[in-house]
Amino acid sequence: MPTDNFGVAGLGVMGRNVALNIERNGFPVVAYNRGDENAAKMRAESRDKNVTVTQSIPDFVSLLTPPRRVLLMVTAGRGTDLVIDALLAHLEAGDVLIDGGNSHFSDTERRAERLQARGLHFVGCGISGGEEGALWGPSIMPGGNRDAYLRIAPVLEKIAAKTDDGSPCVTYCGLGAAGHYVKMVHNGIEYGIMQLICEVYDILRRGQGWSSEEIQQLFRDWTGSGQVGGYLVDITAQCLAKRDDSSGTALVEKILDTAGQKGTGKWTAQTALDLGIPIPTLSQAVNARILSGLKDARVEASAKLTGPSGGAEADRGHLRRVLHDALHLGMVACYAQGLHLIQAASAEFGFGTDLAEVARIWKEGCIIRSKLLDPIRQVYSEHPRLENMLLSPAFTTATNRNLSALREVVGLANDCGVPTTCLGATLAYVDSYRSEFLPANLLQALRDNFGAHTYRRLDMEGVFHTQWNR
Amino acid sequence: MPTDNFGVAGLGVMGRNVALNIERNGFPVVAYNRGDENAAKMRAESRDKNVTVTQSIPDFVSLLTPPRRVLLMVTAGRGTDLVIDALLAHLEAGDVLIDGGNSHFSDTERRAERLQARGLHFVGCGISGGEEGALWGPSIMPGGNRDAYLRIAPVLEKIAAKTDDGSPCVTYCGLGAAGHYVKMVHNGIEYGIMQLICEVYDILRRGQGWSSEEIQQLFRDWTGSGQVGGYLVDITAQCLAKRDDSSGTALVEKILDTAGQKGTGKWTAQTALDLGIPIPTLSQAVNARILSGLKDARVEASAKLTGPSGGAEADRGHLRRVLHDALHLGMVACYAQGLHLIQAASAEFGFGTDLAEVARIWKEGCIIRSKLLDPIRQVYSEHPRLENMLLSPAFTTATNRNLSALREVVGLANDCGVPTTCLGATLAYVDSYRSEFLPANLLQALRDNFGAHTYRRLDMEGVFHTQWNR
Repeated sequence: MPTDNFGVAGLGVMGRNVALNIERNGFPVVAYNRGDENAAKMRAESRDKNVTVTQSIPDFVSLLTPPRRVLLMVTAGRGTDLVIDALLAHLEAGDVLIDGGNSHFSDTERRAERLQARGLHFVGCGISGGEEGALWGPSIMPGGNRDAYLRIAPVLEKIAAKTDDGSPCVTYCGLGAAGHYVKMVHNGIEYGIMQLICEVYDILRRGQGWSSEEIQQLFRDWTGSGQVGGYLVDITAQCLAKRDDSSGTALVEKILDTAGQKGTGKWTAQTALDLGIPIPTLSQAVNARILSGLKDARVEASAKLTGPSGGAEADRGHLRRVLHDALHLGMVACYAQGLHLIQAASAEFGFGTDLAEVARIWKEGCIIRSKLLDPIRQVYSEHPRLENMLLSPAFTTATNRNLSALREVVGLANDCGVPTTCLGATLAYVDSYRSEFLPANLLQALRDNFGAHTYRRLDMEGVFHTQWNR
Repeated sequence: MPTDNFGVAGLGVMGRNVALNIERNGFPVVAYNRGDENAAKMRAESRDKNVTVTQSIPDFVSLLTPPRRVLLMVTAGRGTDLVIDALLAHLEAGDVLIDGGNSHFSDTERRAERLQARGLHFVGCGISGGEEGALWGPSIMPGGNRDAYLRIAPVLEKIAAKTDDGSPCVTYCGLGAAGHYVKMVHNGIEYGIMQLICEVYDILRRGQGWSSEEIQQLFRDWTGSGQVGGYLVDITAQCLAKRDDSSGTALVEKILDTAGQKGTGKWTAQTALDLGIPIPTLSQAVNARILSGLKDARVEASAKLTGPSGGAEADRGHLRRVLHDALHLGMVACYAQGLHLIQAASAEFGFGTDLAEVARIWKEGCIIRSKLLDPIRQVYSEHPRLENMLLSPAFTTATNRNLSALREVVGLANDCGVPTTCLGATLAYVDSYRSEFLPANLLQALRDNFGAHTYRRLDMEGVFHTQWNR
């Protein structure tokens, strides 16, 4: 019996690589792109493979074995709706449509409802791993109707990255838009860790005058032995090692310091505000990107606003140790905040997300894979409903071990005039979280004073209002 | 000729006080509330006044002289739409409907379009000043159709607070939802300044062991002579002075340290992310409130997570000076970030907002009134299109004078284990803003490495992509 085929619509580099990954794993692929260029690239890359390329939607749908399975790999936004519109005229009840783009979770909810009304299944599916991951094994985060997931699971399990024990980095993330929500938060965590790494780099470069080579050595050491080891630290060492062909110096030193952002980091910060979950390390990472984009204003301000630029040289061995520990705690905070948010979203939207499974599928294939995901998975396996992993014994111990290092690093950076947007936010987060008493008592007094918002008391039940000016 | 009357719909304490303010200034008022309790309170409070109270929408509309002017004073949200629906059946083309609640600006845009289609004018109007301000003179921020504004301006100018030179604290904020946008950002700034004050209080209380009386004395000194003087510092001194009747200690010490939030601060943070404007001091103030709300988790964490609780006693005279200067810079950053956001929103949404006028109408009546608004108004009078007031000579000088104090205060607080959510975010903001080079060059290298996002270079034009692993 021939294996059922699988459709991929949208043949940018991610779409082509996922198609090749599916074909390599034994499933015939029907690949669609309207435009000539991507279709031609797909044809060229799959010449001797079981991939049929078409530029016609009716042909695409008719070439697929019903009930059909179609993976959309188009840039999130209006384009996703246009392709869905075009497909809907031809798909039939029982077909499964999978959106593999970075769609906003509210769009996914809307599309799922629309398709359900037509008898089709819609699976919002996050895919992480970049171009290489798409080809050789990404981390895959699908959500939606569970039966529809089970129909596509055999393919997803084949193409996904594998952990050390051979389990595939894919799991059913939950109902509705759970898959895209989990992927969005994955990207929010990615923003946070990347910005923390950049701040460590900045402290060493601008604050301490280290060369790119010296900083590269530090990150290379951490890729092996450090507890911060993971993909982002690995590629940091890789990036810092790369030479500029023309000048022979480190290529990073030639790169314009303005970062773009694609939306998922911003969405993470916005939904956390709606749900009332504190994710300051992640949201300040978005803010750091926004500030990087104001290059002209910064150049102007740099000539006007004065302050330290660099500081006294710290002992290098000690500095390496405290930077490692500070980065470790920063990364822990990123995962803690992101998983806290997913836990809250799962409750709010009824996803039913299993956080231990989320940690497991992030262990390989995706951008935020790191050594930390083993203990994180362990924590949520034992305490599936834990609100914040900082409260688990493992991470309480780690936090207590590293907090003084983070405090020292933030102090050193501040003295050097190097901004600690995310390191500082992490320190304030941990110091707030471990505070039985915060100064919000005064805030409540002020709000009651000018707006009669009332307040509660520590020593008695009830709601109180005071005439403060009498 | 009798003066045309004015309608007020919604008779909570804010609505009743605005109605009494309008009547006191010579305009007959027709006041509507469906429910008995508020209507009865309005009747009691206006017994000998030119206020007609009704609980019937048809009567309310028929009692008003056409073209009618109706001010809605209802809690923002679904209730606003319900009252508009009820009024729409009776209002006529040419009538002006004013929403004086804290509506989200996107709701205001929607409602303005809906009413325009019926030939009615809609004015989204922020009103700040709390209960007392509503009665004796609030700061009023109207926006929408300019002709409609001119029809209500004579009333608004009478009831508004007045600055020293007698000018009323009301101005036309611009087209569309400009009024509600300006009011939203006003509240965002309010969140920021309040949190900064709370952090100063926390540093002194938990970090340095000062008594509430000693802290109260500091804020009282600042109300008179300090450059941070303004309403929020005034009422901080007032709140800290208040005694608890039963225990005789400072009442603030008895208040539960969990702050509520009504939405405008959150909306400010969310829209700033959409527009790509950095407002870290304001958005971290929202985050601080969120963290304050996690009281149970904080109590649990306080028993598990260890770190300093208080530090070595600093010289009191020196500490007073640096805290003053740090708070000053923090407040400057709040106004700078908020006005940067309004400037960007005005360009994005076509408001045409005059920032000097915004600074002027905030000088009295509203919660964020302070001495700083005089120099701020001056700056935007001279440079109406200035992106960020930190780049003006006046605030460049002030920032350079106070930055080292802020740096010292953040360092001291961190050493004491006291979180500096907003003070620290402000320091990172200024240090980022004054950085010609930020570490986003490395960020761009990482993004290009895993996602082929490309980068630009400092030394040549074009867009580049590198195979980093070769």
